[in-house]
Amino acid sequence: MDAIDVIRAKRDGGALTPEQIDWTIDAYTRDAIAEEQMAALAMAIVLNGMARPEVARWTEAMIRSGERMDWSALDRPTTDKHSTGGVGDKITLPLAPLVAACGAAVPQLSGRGLGHTGGTLDKLESIPGWRASLAPAEMLRVLGEAGAVVCAAGPGLAPADRKLYALRDVTGTVESIPLIASSIMSKKIAEGTGALTLDVKVGSGAFMKRAADARELAETMVGIGADHGVRTVALLTAMDRPLGAAVGNAVEVAESVEILAGGGPADAVELTLALAREMLAAVGIDRDPADALRDGSAMDAWRRMISAQGGDPDAPLPRPNETHVVAAPSSGVLARLDAYGVGVAAWRLGAGRARRDDPVSAAAGVLCHAKPGDRVTAGQPLLTLQADDPARFDRALAALDGAYTVTADGGDGGGDGAAVPEPLPLVIDRVG
Amino acid sequence: MDAIDVIRAKRDGGALTPEQIDWTIDAYTRDAIAEEQMAALAMAIVLNGMARPEVARWTEAMIRSGERMDWSALDRPTTDKHSTGGVGDKITLPLAPLVAACGAAVPQLSGRGLGHTGGTLDKLESIPGWRASLAPAEMLRVLGEAGAVVCAAGPGLAPADRKLYALRDVTGTVESIPLIASSIMSKKIAEGTGALTLDVKVGSGAFMKRAADARELAETMVGIGADHGVRTVALLTAMDRPLGAAVGNAVEVAESVEILAGGGPADAVELTLALAREMLAAVGIDRDPADALRDGSAMDAWRRMISAQGGDPDAPLPRPNETHVVAAPSSGVLARLDAYGVGVAAWRLGAGRARRDDPVSAAAGVLCHAKPGDRVTAGQPLLTLQADDPARFDRALAALDGAYTVTADGGDGGGDGAAVPEPLPLVIDRVG
Repeated sequence: MDAIDVIRAKRDGGALTPEQIDWTIDAYTRDAIAEEQMAALAMAIVLNGMARPEVARWTEAMIRSGERMDWSALDRPTTDKHSTGGVGDKITLPLAPLVAACGAAVPQLSGRGLGHTGGTLDKLESIPGWRASLAPAEMLRVLGEAGAVVCAAGPGLAPADRKLYALRDVTGTVESIPLIASSIMSKKIAEGTGALTLDVKVGSGAFMKRAADARELAETMVGIGADHGVRTVALLTAMDRPLGAAVGNAVEVAESVEILAGGGPADAVELTLALAREMLAAVGIDRDPADALRDGSAMDAWRRMISAQGGDPDAPLPRPNETHVVAAPSSGVLARLDAYGVGVAAWRLGAGRARRDDPVSAAAGVLCHAKPGDRVTAGQPLLTLQADDPARFDRALAALDGAYTVTADGGDGGGDGAAVPEPLPLVIDRVG
Repeated sequence: MDAIDVIRAKRDGGALTPEQIDWTIDAYTRDAIAEEQMAALAMAIVLNGMARPEVARWTEAMIRSGERMDWSALDRPTTDKHSTGGVGDKITLPLAPLVAACGAAVPQLSGRGLGHTGGTLDKLESIPGWRASLAPAEMLRVLGEAGAVVCAAGPGLAPADRKLYALRDVTGTVESIPLIASSIMSKKIAEGTGALTLDVKVGSGAFMKRAADARELAETMVGIGADHGVRTVALLTAMDRPLGAAVGNAVEVAESVEILAGGGPADAVELTLALAREMLAAVGIDRDPADALRDGSAMDAWRRMISAQGGDPDAPLPRPNETHVVAAPSSGVLARLDAYGVGVAAWRLGAGRARRDDPVSAAAGVLCHAKPGDRVTAGQPLLTLQADDPARFDRALAALDGAYTVTADGGDGGGDGAAVPEPLPLVIDRVG
């Protein structure tokens, strides 16, 4: 077989055969297909698509490029969650111990942030002592001790996806539903979870701006999961505004601990419970996760999980050197707070990275003191920006320019601004 | 500027701005854009195209990536020809000295063959002593002595095109009219010719199988030439059957010398004269090139041109170790002789190369003893295959399987074979 023939087949709008897909992924993993050849193929896939059978085979080939983890030694069923990424999306932090407290095991391999969306591992690393890198035997130990583990994927897991992901990042070939779906699902299936709940974000702060695209991505991933014997459902959820009140690293850990203590912002709590119900239902556990928040068992599981990975759950979290308050420009209703603008502001404050190997600031981020629909008074704090270096405030404030709207008359939150869109419902739809 | 933004713009169907194009070509030449990024962009161009202003700017940027030659020191006008490549297309060999004999200067930078189409430099290198590589000062000397020079382009000429051409070859991104047109025209304009006649081939042995595609390519190139002050016309010509009788290297030199001596196959003579008339008209020279064939002045120019580049015009040409004759299977009319099949046969006999650095055989090739429309008798020689190694005949014969058709009744050449298409007219159209 020849790489040029495979590229031409997709370029000319044809479907790749199973043999072509298997050969391509294997050869790419062995460096027998050059990066420039895979880049041309990826662009042909972005523009000409892949049909469902091609995506299924592509995913299968990426799984087979490495090892597939096995949790059958555990005495409880495994169930995991994956989010396509958003602003203030710390839900894994309270969710994993919550589901563990209800009797399932959560073996989550997670990632770091790139661009304006945060990364779960970056957030957890703001806890003194906590380690993201675990050997498989350590993962099994943490799962046994705490019922949940959140750690980095090792190099043996879907190595073809690891290579392809890095290539897509620099060649403008990220934006492809078949490539996104196969990338996510190859990692999650190789991770060995028995069930999977997908949180597919929709809105300005998400990868998918439109619900129709998010639904197509969700349906593609749910289909791949079913093909591989992983019970998969997806929720489409709102990412037009930040999730919860905290956007950053340590600030999101703090908010997660509030949720585990029975408090926290209403939307973050509601989404945590909705995802927990899906994860538990997928493995046949009939418990109301709200009970585990009330009775402290979820908090206990969190403390065990953090400790088992070297973290000190009682240590003070890093605090910023500098803060800057953005006040409400007028009195009325906060009709709009744009997720993308807030995400870029947090990124520029130091919470995120522009390049894969950049460090992130644990203390940097944005606190949102009001949510869309809230009444605000002129001069009251709307947002608090946090950074290690005050020189970062200017560019963060530029990202917030036009990112929020206060309308003069209250009540319905719409005011006179016909141009202000209604916020999306928190859970838009369910696929699966 | 950022490569990913440029890739995304073309991926999403937009037009690249002049600034984006200039930056991209310059950065690629300096290795500041990675090969995989250029591969993704090239595939996006293949699939989403480029509008005429983009192609013009892209060409301009590739010219500016290197030097532009200058022949203003010559006392006669420069006029050149470029063929998009075919089977048996030796026309440059008699044409360049013929046009020189009529009073113009022909500064032709030429290439080597890849795949089933031959390369002018490969053909000329079968002449003992002849050198393809000349420094610019040597080119000027040869032009002064002979009026025509045919040599390899130096590394300083359109280096961006040199890099991009090699990349496209391995990434399935050759087949794009904007990329083909800009590649050809950047080299020809950088070469410094004042006028240019394009021979755009149409048919099975050509890059463009359909006249409509060839016309689009021709119109694009004629437009680019006009934009750069190079008087450019294009002929669309037949490449459904081989041109002339000889296909290979030394055999094509021999046929070219026959043409210069006033003989040679009718179609090769006719096309040589048609192209010569265009090249002369473009620089205002009102002479009939047929006179220069008759009076021996074209042959004199050929001998000066070959000698000036170290070649011996009187040396015997390499002869093959082995020959194999293909006989007519029945009596009737040769209704069809497929250019692609004959081209692949010659390639497999050793006349062409599969990889850029492969050697070619000077003596290998195919001699065609009949042309479509000729009457043939069962058993008479139809083709003679030549090779250095008889082991090559089997695969060459396989390429000829189904490549020719002899019909039972003569006359109109169509016979009972409704499936045998009419041969294309030698000159199909003129664009300019």
